[in-house]
Amino acid sequence: MTVSAVPEQSYVFQSVVDKTGTQVVGGKGIRIDIERDGKVYKDVIDAITGAAVGAIGWGDEEALEIINRAAADSVYSYPCLMSNKSAEKLAKFYIDNSPEGAFVSALWCTSGSESNENALRIIRQYYLERGLPKKLKLISREDSYHGFTLGAQSISNNPRIEKFKDYFMDQKNICLTMPSAYTYRNKLKSESEEDYAVRLLKILEDKIIAEGADTIAAIIVETLPGSSLGTTPPPKGYLKGIRDLCNKYDIIFYLDEVMCGTGRCNPNGKLNCWENFLEPQDAPDIQTVGKTLGSGYVTIAGILIGPKIKDAYLQGSGTVVGGHTYASHAFNCAVALGIQEKIQRENLTANVFKMGNLMGEKLKKALLSEDNIAGDVRGVGGFWSVEFVADRDTKKPFEPSQDIAGRVKELCFQNGLNVMGMGVTPNGSCSDRILLAPSFIITEDDVDQIVEKVVKSVTELTKALAEEAA
Amino acid sequence: MTVSAVPEQSYVFQSVVDKTGTQVVGGKGIRIDIERDGKVYKDVIDAITGAAVGAIGWGDEEALEIINRAAADSVYSYPCLMSNKSAEKLAKFYIDNSPEGAFVSALWCTSGSESNENALRIIRQYYLERGLPKKLKLISREDSYHGFTLGAQSISNNPRIEKFKDYFMDQKNICLTMPSAYTYRNKLKSESEEDYAVRLLKILEDKIIAEGADTIAAIIVETLPGSSLGTTPPPKGYLKGIRDLCNKYDIIFYLDEVMCGTGRCNPNGKLNCWENFLEPQDAPDIQTVGKTLGSGYVTIAGILIGPKIKDAYLQGSGTVVGGHTYASHAFNCAVALGIQEKIQRENLTANVFKMGNLMGEKLKKALLSEDNIAGDVRGVGGFWSVEFVADRDTKKPFEPSQDIAGRVKELCFQNGLNVMGMGVTPNGSCSDRILLAPSFIITEDDVDQIVEKVVKSVTELTKALAEEAA
Repeated sequence: MTVSAVPEQSYVFQSVVDKTGTQVVGGKGIRIDIERDGKVYKDVIDAITGAAVGAIGWGDEEALEIINRAAADSVYSYPCLMSNKSAEKLAKFYIDNSPEGAFVSALWCTSGSESNENALRIIRQYYLERGLPKKLKLISREDSYHGFTLGAQSISNNPRIEKFKDYFMDQKNICLTMPSAYTYRNKLKSESEEDYAVRLLKILEDKIIAEGADTIAAIIVETLPGSSLGTTPPPKGYLKGIRDLCNKYDIIFYLDEVMCGTGRCNPNGKLNCWENFLEPQDAPDIQTVGKTLGSGYVTIAGILIGPKIKDAYLQGSGTVVGGHTYASHAFNCAVALGIQEKIQRENLTANVFKMGNLMGEKLKKALLSEDNIAGDVRGVGGFWSVEFVADRDTKKPFEPSQDIAGRVKELCFQNGLNVMGMGVTPNGSCSDRILLAPSFIITEDDVDQIVEKVVKSVTELTKALAEEAA
Repeated sequence: MTVSAVPEQSYVFQSVVDKTGTQVVGGKGIRIDIERDGKVYKDVIDAITGAAVGAIGWGDEEALEIINRAAADSVYSYPCLMSNKSAEKLAKFYIDNSPEGAFVSALWCTSGSESNENALRIIRQYYLERGLPKKLKLISREDSYHGFTLGAQSISNNPRIEKFKDYFMDQKNICLTMPSAYTYRNKLKSESEEDYAVRLLKILEDKIIAEGADTIAAIIVETLPGSSLGTTPPPKGYLKGIRDLCNKYDIIFYLDEVMCGTGRCNPNGKLNCWENFLEPQDAPDIQTVGKTLGSGYVTIAGILIGPKIKDAYLQGSGTVVGGHTYASHAFNCAVALGIQEKIQRENLTANVFKMGNLMGEKLKKALLSEDNIAGDVRGVGGFWSVEFVADRDTKKPFEPSQDIAGRVKELCFQNGLNVMGMGVTPNGSCSDRILLAPSFIITEDDVDQIVEKVVKSVTELTKALAEEAA
């Protein structure tokens, strides 16, 4: 352990701007080494892998070989003028490992934000190709997060982005909202999950009719919402209902799987999260992906295109307008393909689905059977959340000033576990929660350690809060 | 040479969507191998390096070592929660190799588009930190290009982006324009360069006053405009005049050097293009960079922050709101740093400044002394353009249907040279041009070959056009 008395001057403009803050200084498998305030904490279990980015663990030997080979084999090209075979192979891999007919084309870019920006552009051009310029409006959800760039934030609704609203797309005439699907808080006691879905779908259909279906371009949903609502699964029938409304009114069905997709929550050992909830014929028309695609080793994300969209282009201009300098980056694509092939060969997607669900069930059992601040434990496969409440019966959120998520996160860290904490929304629409998204390589022993540390931390905070209140 | 009769099915959604099109299949130094319609063209001289991306040449052995080392040493972290030492080191390198006091902080992201998106966010938060929420308006130029995402395109003005305007930020109340600085076409014969700059600055100052200086957030200029206006250098006194107006009216001076910066056009063997035109004390308040930063090997770009902006944050919240999953990516930063250190050690920036200027002078001499379609040859250091005109005296542009840029580009390709062609704008504000941005490693012999091939191609097209007109 090294100790320095004075916090280092930082040259990086992020987070707290004048301090270097917490830094990752090493990692192997599911464990990372963290330096903070001059101390190094070794072998912290990384239960969130950045922001649900990691799939194959850190410092993977095969990944290094994949990177070395990809670097030797790749030459940069500007995609508007020249493509490359690695981009083609990665696209074919993703299409081939999705339900047949779901996707026919893909575009690779460098972040989830860029993927959602590109999806909006593709949708806009799609309607222009069809001679339907009036189909402009985008319906996303009241609690949602689709990226950090201004276009992606324009279709997001989240207290974190309020400050930047003046720089967004038209929030009145273009970017519309519908209620979130949030079973834990918003399903009525008198409703079944199916009833709740029907109620949400009725609100959506009323909105489509009121606005005019000929003005609606797309309905945008995170299959399993990540940072906005804490991995709340869609109620039964909800996604299928949106698919049906999109068919009925000629609207693009757009799923954001940047955080939940690419193997993190797939029940079939494959890629897409929506396979938990939808039949192959109900696939989205467009889908964005990222994070686990490159498993943190390279900065890659992408857009999957269904036949409906590609066909409109083929019957129109046949050409995509413009492109990014770093789209289809050959090296990034080659590394991502190598990593995905390894994941497939080693059945890591099936592993994280099983181990993640085991982790979720164990957390449920341990936390919800005891008297503590945990109100809900929810998730699918390798992506779970624990939501905290001041009162389990009324589901009353904590006050933002109590920083419950921050305190759980810090206790987890002290107990050797890295998680993400998200604070209560100012309007109380969603309470404090922690997110868990471990590497796909976790074992049952890892699961037990994660569960033990989360339960310990939650118990400690519950006790501390009781003492503070006394 | 391999030949296949049938064009391959493409799975990548870019350019012509149903064909694989032209692909890069290899490269070494300044040469690339290109596959098109089943034929492989070996050792084409790459005079544009994608889109002005390449600095150290392709297949560089040291770059492979840098990548392998960076991969072994780097662990991904989510920058909102955890940073890393490579991001710090790269930031310090860029600051230390810029004029003293110009920059004090940097943020690394994955593309020039994201850099410009982040710059807008940083500017917005800067004014909020200072309690000046009304300072919202962004003034960019009539012919300009700042990226492919919707926020970056909102401050761009370009026929390529017209189709997407409905998805932009407020084009009436937020995103304002001023005339381009385009000496070849828009300077009056009666004016000196300085007079022209004074005229442009008067228009800008009148706009600031008319809109109200307390509503203007930033003035945004590409130091040497790349894809929008073909490397037209700012007229003498122009950038200094903008700097002075920004000081006078408390406005952020924002330079976009994504394409022209990071060594491509620096007169001092360093990094920034503006050092050609501005004294150190007149540095921009914020600057975006990209392209040559990673030299095509990794997808990295960034934002440089001046003391004025950092100080406002430090005196305010001290914290940057939010962040990208892939910001400060340790592996990308480590590779970029290794590449920049190599460039510095081998004096490649000084080399491309000298060789690029030699290339420009030779092109000027060869093209403008003969009767052909070249109207102007202009640029700085490693970044040059040739603009084509139907009439040299009147500077009349060609018709868009004649596809002059496309034809020059194709002839260059047939002659073994890869260049970028940009078509005439529909309103004739800028005519067809080709862009040249070779690797920093070019030799005098390479320069002679590039010049010979450009001149040959232009001469061939001039002759063909005369024959077609006859």
